[in-house]
Amino acid sequence: MTAANPQGAAPRRGRGRPSRTEAESGPGTRDRILAAAREQFSERGYDKASIRGIAKAAGVDSALVHHYFGTKDDVFAAAIEVTFEPAQGVVDTVADGLDGAGERLARFFFSVWENPATRTPLLAIIRSAVTHEAAAKILRAFVMRRLIERVEVDLEVPDPKFRAELAASHMVGIAMVRYVVKVEPLASADPEEIIALVAPTLQRYLTET
Amino acid sequence: MTAANPQGAAPRRGRGRPSRTEAESGPGTRDRILAAAREQFSERGYDKASIRGIAKAAGVDSALVHHYFGTKDDVFAAAIEVTFEPAQGVVDTVADGLDGAGERLARFFFSVWENPATRTPLLAIIRSAVTHEAAAKILRAFVMRRLIERVEVDLEVPDPKFRAELAASHMVGIAMVRYVVKVEPLASADPEEIIALVAPTLQRYLTET
Repeated sequence: MTAANPQGAAPRRGRGRPSRTEAESGPGTRDRILAAAREQFSERGYDKASIRGIAKAAGVDSALVHHYFGTKDDVFAAAIEVTFEPAQGVVDTVADGLDGAGERLARFFFSVWENPATRTPLLAIIRSAVTHEAAAKILRAFVMRRLIERVEVDLEVPDPKFRAELAASHMVGIAMVRYVVKVEPLASADPEEIIALVAPTLQRYLTET
Repeated sequence: MTAANPQGAAPRRGRGRPSRTEAESGPGTRDRILAAAREQFSERGYDKASIRGIAKAAGVDSALVHHYFGTKDDVFAAAIEVTFEPAQGVVDTVADGLDGAGERLARFFFSVWENPATRTPLLAIIRSAVTHEAAAKILRAFVMRRLIERVEVDLEVPDPKFRAELAASHMVGIAMVRYVVKVEPLASADPEEIIALVAPTLQRYLTET
């Protein structure tokens, strides 16, 4: 990987540009920057998060962030990848067989959203994508490449991408109503009650021709 | 209605506080303020919209905005009421009879969202509610009182509020994926294709026991 060109990047202060040796020295440096990026995007949103703030939180120079990731959008994309790592479970769930996939998907959804550790960064991504087209574009590309296109190969319905996305849209809506806007009774309903009604819908979208 | 107390409100410039006579003179003044409020919230979002900006856009003094509506949150609530006026159609759709209500609801949803004049302010409200708890709270109260509680009286299922909201959540999710994040193929799909698959889901939520 070549160093990204920090073309007129964020103003640098303090330690100055790190030497290549310093840049590549810490084996955990990239992960530390990524963790800081995820936290900054979560707490400050896409708009207010900056390469400089991420560098500061990670205890490195801004140039090092550029070196590892490139632009702010590239860092955001990398943060989305990490945040959505649990979403790989969606792909596995469908690959495990279509029988009962609707219910497994609904259960998986709640396992991710009911856990504050995975919910918080997801909420941050939704907020960013809803308010900033640049963030929406990155999320869009990610969802297509990593979720829809991987799930569709296991579906045996006409227009599998469309079906997978329709199922996803229902989950997105439940997340919006329950976790973002928090409208009752859905906001406090037992996940099992929701799963009982939603699983057959997902199953129908994924398998019924 | 008594005049709201402009407790240390937005700093006023220019024309100074209007006399009560001036305040009540223009019969269309309230509507003009409301139209300006809706536009300001749409264009600038909940956060950046201000009583002062709304007053300026309506060509009135800030005190007049306070007089008619109260606080910024009160103006926002009034703007939501106007924006969601078409949503009354949802209530009528269900009240017209449960037979085929799922499909009528899905069609109604697209008639509102495919029209830029009604879509733009809805997008603004979603953006505001997703990023500002104060806006979310107002939207939440509105959705409960004006939509869920009115639709539930016509449903003949156990837990009608929960059912109505589950149907609503699916529509919210489609709006998010199609109009906000714009993920393909849902973003460009023919509404009829979506209606064909979604209508049975809505029907099941609203009527199947």
